[in-house]
Amino acid sequence: MDDAAVLELGGATLVLTHDMMVEGVHFLATDRSADVAWKLVASNLSDLAAKGAAPVGLLLGYTLAGDSDWDEAFVTGLGAAVARWNAPLLGGDTVSVPSGAARTLGLTAIGRAAGPVPARSGAKAGDELWVSGTIGDAGAGLAMALGKLEGSPALLKRHRRPEPRLDAGQRLAPVVSAMMDVSDGLLIDARRMAAASGVGVALELGRVPLSPELVAAAGTPIDAATAGDDYELLFAAPPSAAAEIGRIGARTGLAFTRIGAFRQGSGLALLDHGAEVPLPARLGWEHGRS
Amino acid sequence: MDDAAVLELGGATLVLTHDMMVEGVHFLATDRSADVAWKLVASNLSDLAAKGAAPVGLLLGYTLAGDSDWDEAFVTGLGAAVARWNAPLLGGDTVSVPSGAARTLGLTAIGRAAGPVPARSGAKAGDELWVSGTIGDAGAGLAMALGKLEGSPALLKRHRRPEPRLDAGQRLAPVVSAMMDVSDGLLIDARRMAAASGVGVALELGRVPLSPELVAAAGTPIDAATAGDDYELLFAAPPSAAAEIGRIGARTGLAFTRIGAFRQGSGLALLDHGAEVPLPARLGWEHGRS
Repeated sequence: MDDAAVLELGGATLVLTHDMMVEGVHFLATDRSADVAWKLVASNLSDLAAKGAAPVGLLLGYTLAGDSDWDEAFVTGLGAAVARWNAPLLGGDTVSVPSGAARTLGLTAIGRAAGPVPARSGAKAGDELWVSGTIGDAGAGLAMALGKLEGSPALLKRHRRPEPRLDAGQRLAPVVSAMMDVSDGLLIDARRMAAASGVGVALELGRVPLSPELVAAAGTPIDAATAGDDYELLFAAPPSAAAEIGRIGARTGLAFTRIGAFRQGSGLALLDHGAEVPLPARLGWEHGRS
Repeated sequence: MDDAAVLELGGATLVLTHDMMVEGVHFLATDRSADVAWKLVASNLSDLAAKGAAPVGLLLGYTLAGDSDWDEAFVTGLGAAVARWNAPLLGGDTVSVPSGAARTLGLTAIGRAAGPVPARSGAKAGDELWVSGTIGDAGAGLAMALGKLEGSPALLKRHRRPEPRLDAGQRLAPVVSAMMDVSDGLLIDARRMAAASGVGVALELGRVPLSPELVAAAGTPIDAATAGDDYELLFAAPPSAAAEIGRIGARTGLAFTRIGAFRQGSGLALLDHGAEVPLPARLGWEHGRS
């Protein structure tokens, strides 16, 4: 299934997505609830970004677990995210659950697309595979949060406060053959795009864009490409679109990097300096956590 | 807050609602999951009905708790409800939670209104208070399910398989001053409508419509009016609208009953043969369960 539903209604193209975050699965009870709220909004809006949609509004499903400090800080983070992306909270539901029960949060994001809505299934043999920004920072930030890594606060921030690529998504939508966001890991998501499109994809490990902060923390391309929670845009486009993609990058201040190519066949091939290397045992996060 | 958000978009009027159902709060682990699914859909669509909207689609947030029989029956009930009301499942999210964790289900319903969208806040002094169908059946059905009452299977069915009044809601919307659905109890919901509208309301207990099955099970008007889960339409309309309301009743095969009147002032007054009687200690279900 695609990450978002598309609905033509009265001359408007609506994009709808619903994501859940469960305590103990997607976040820890010890995480700052303002960050949890931010991430709940950001991950949903990232699905809209991949569809080239602008946010119209949000509906929140929220469990009150009897900790008013947690709830207050959640509302603060929610308010910050809502203001940051101009995505008003339109309504929702609040339910009291027994104290100690795992919090289960749900968010529905409604967006509107002004033009064509890319699917993840549109990649063609001959298309190039692109990714926005840098990969692996959020994964390193998670390792820092768990006390397993020392690194730049910038990495921690990418874990706690991801930025959906809404502006870039809207500008890229008319140019790409296929688009999705990277949430479960670059490798697993690239393979999913290829599978949905009925083609194969070869990805050059050395081209995976890493931030200076990640390199300084000794992050490797393979760790970065399987870490997840990047919320960058992964897209396929014909070689003829490269110049336009470059212009969009300049306009949005976001780097786009060609990291591979689609081809006849199926599956994901990983290349290291052009030579195929074995896939790691784990490509990213499997279903049930996204 | 109203039960649904209204959004004007590209010439269409969208109505959006999100309701949650939590195991142990809104349903029991021993409830049939096909009924839980039906009720999740019905309760959300009932919010659309009160706004005069027709369903466009649904997004589901679902927790997998490691019981595939439960999940399979849930999908069966969901499919039945989706087909019954022509409300396609557009997408959503599924999350695995630890076995034994309370299931938390969320549903977003998207509807479209062809005309004016009633709020619960539009009742005026002089308006009459109406309710659709019969009240209290679902409450008696719940008592049957808990083994506390013997009664007709029709009562149990109204508890397990409520019917949102979609057709009637769409026809009533242009006629009413205010409308909402009865989910938490007739008395508490009538008081909420009056409070939102800045007026008072007097409700004649003897006019609360009871089904023959409820009367046969010795149900009383006061029990019925505080039981909840009726998913009937509660609405305010000027006396001049009575004939048109009668015609809509005839066309939809649903009875509409005048049960009270709005007046200057505030609060809910309960009348028994025209004389004010004390309110019961409990008017219905308070926030956190709806």
